[in-house]
Amino acid sequence: MRILIVGASGTIGQKVVEQLESKHEIIRAGRNGADVSVDITNPDSIAEMYKQVGRVDAVVNASGGATFKAVPELTPELNEKGIESKLKGQVNLVLLGQEYINDGGSFTLTTGVMMDDPIPMGASAAMANGGVKAFVKSASIEMPRGIRINSVSPNIVLETWERLGDFFSGFIPVPAAQVARGYVKSVEGKQTGQNYEMY
Amino acid sequence: MRILIVGASGTIGQKVVEQLESKHEIIRAGRNGADVSVDITNPDSIAEMYKQVGRVDAVVNASGGATFKAVPELTPELNEKGIESKLKGQVNLVLLGQEYINDGGSFTLTTGVMMDDPIPMGASAAMANGGVKAFVKSASIEMPRGIRINSVSPNIVLETWERLGDFFSGFIPVPAAQVARGYVKSVEGKQTGQNYEMY
Ligand SMILES: NC(=O)c1ccc[n+]([C@@H]2O[C@H](COP(=O)([O-])OP(=O)(O)OC[C@H]3O[C@@H](n4cnc5c(N)ncnc54)[C@H](OP(=O)(O)O)[C@@H]3O)[C@@H](O)[C@H]2O)c1
Ligand SMILES: NC(=O)c1ccc[n+]([C@@H]2O[C@H](COP(=O)([O-])OP(=O)(O)OC[C@H]3O[C@@H](n4cnc5c(N)ncnc54)[C@H](OP(=O)(O)O)[C@@H]3O)[C@@H](O)[C@H]2O)c1
Repeated sequence: MRILIVGASGTIGQKVVEQLESKHEIIRAGRNGADVSVDITNPDSIAEMYKQVGRVDAVVNASGGATFKAVPELTPELNEKGIESKLKGQVNLVLLGQEYINDGGSFTLTTGVMMDDPIPMGASAAMANGGVKAFVKSASIEMPRGIRINSVSPNIVLETWERLGDFFSGFIPVPAAQVARGYVKSVEGKQTGQNYEMY
Repeated sequence: MRILIVGASGTIGQKVVEQLESKHEIIRAGRNGADVSVDITNPDSIAEMYKQVGRVDAVVNASGGATFKAVPELTPELNEKGIESKLKGQVNLVLLGQEYINDGGSFTLTTGVMMDDPIPMGASAAMANGGVKAFVKSASIEMPRGIRINSVSPNIVLETWERLGDFFSGFIPVPAAQVARGYVKSVEGKQTGQNYEMY
């Protein structure tokens, strides 16, 4: 398969690349992508990326952020990062990419454990994650040409734990390589409308 | 209690008003609100409403929309209504309203069955609903001063069935007065972080 991976250089993205590159052709994307550059917060940039890349069998996204802030300090402005990046960035990768995916291909997006098991300062990220999960489930029933769509919900990743573990008291971190299995399952498997919980 | 109801004139909002007005002081809001006007898609309008209304014990929102469109025809632009209205409109009612709610007060937002039981053309609405549900669950753990936050997820409402029933094949519609019980439970009860499924 020809697989476009947005966020290929990231903690999780690197492991997804590692687990897919022996069997597939990988196109690595990101703001400083090794093969193609894209900023998912900008629809024109997404459209430009697809034009450059052309047809693919799968699109994986392992990028997207949100502001971490306690609700009493969260403002409409601070909430915009989660809206523009993690939520709309991912939805727009699907809306603008659907015509570039071959029949029977797939989209795999990223959510996260914070929507299911809330952490302090996580409300904006949870909002974005919940939006992506519900979009995936609903969109899956009307994707054209047998195209599938799933999301992967990573637990806090071991490699990220040193930096962010304080926000995830009592969580049991999961290695990025284990989280990457969810993306492999989505790309190479046959299910659609799923949110693989890598907890 | 002093209760601000946004969308008070709507199909669901009317029934919520009916079930709360004998015991509480109701302030009815909407773009053409009987007591105060607000457009939830505009943060300045929300801020202005709260300034006019002052302190309340509960805020209920029964407004917010999204574009109905099949995924192959959904564009980033068409998806904006769900983002701006149903999702950000509701989140901003909380972010901008939290300082106006009395200790132990509550917010009650609205999601919808389409996020759990997808229908054709419902992906944008499902996205918004899922975002609101996850925001509510996460925000509930750090609301200040004992303030609670819940959402109500209406099934397709009987009164709306005539107009939209074709999109909800096989669903069993629920009277708006029954859906309104979820809002009453949220306002007068003690739970927080819930999404009451009125299915
Ligand atoms: N790590 C965790 O513990 C964890 C837990 C739950 C969920 N997640 C989610 O998993 C995803 C990946 O996390 P991660 O820890 O692997 O992230 P990361 O290490 O920070 O890597 C992010 C990747 O995305 C790219 N990127 C960032 N912003 C972008 C943008 N606007 N447009 C396009 N590409 C962009 C980066 O490359 P460039 O800098 O070149 O753009 C990089 O390749 C995120 O959605 C995150 O919320 C992570
Ligand atoms: N009806 C159903 O079957 C059903 C099912 C699932 C979920 N829901 C959800 O439940 C909520 C209420 O639905 P409904 O059927 O009762 O709606 P509705 O009958 O169309 O009423 C909408 C109410 O919201 C107000 N409103 C609309 N846009 C607004 C805005 N931008 N800012 C402030 N107020 C606004 C309207 O008053 P003005 O015109 O004066 O602004 C009206 O009071 C919506 O979020 C809907 O998605 C409904």
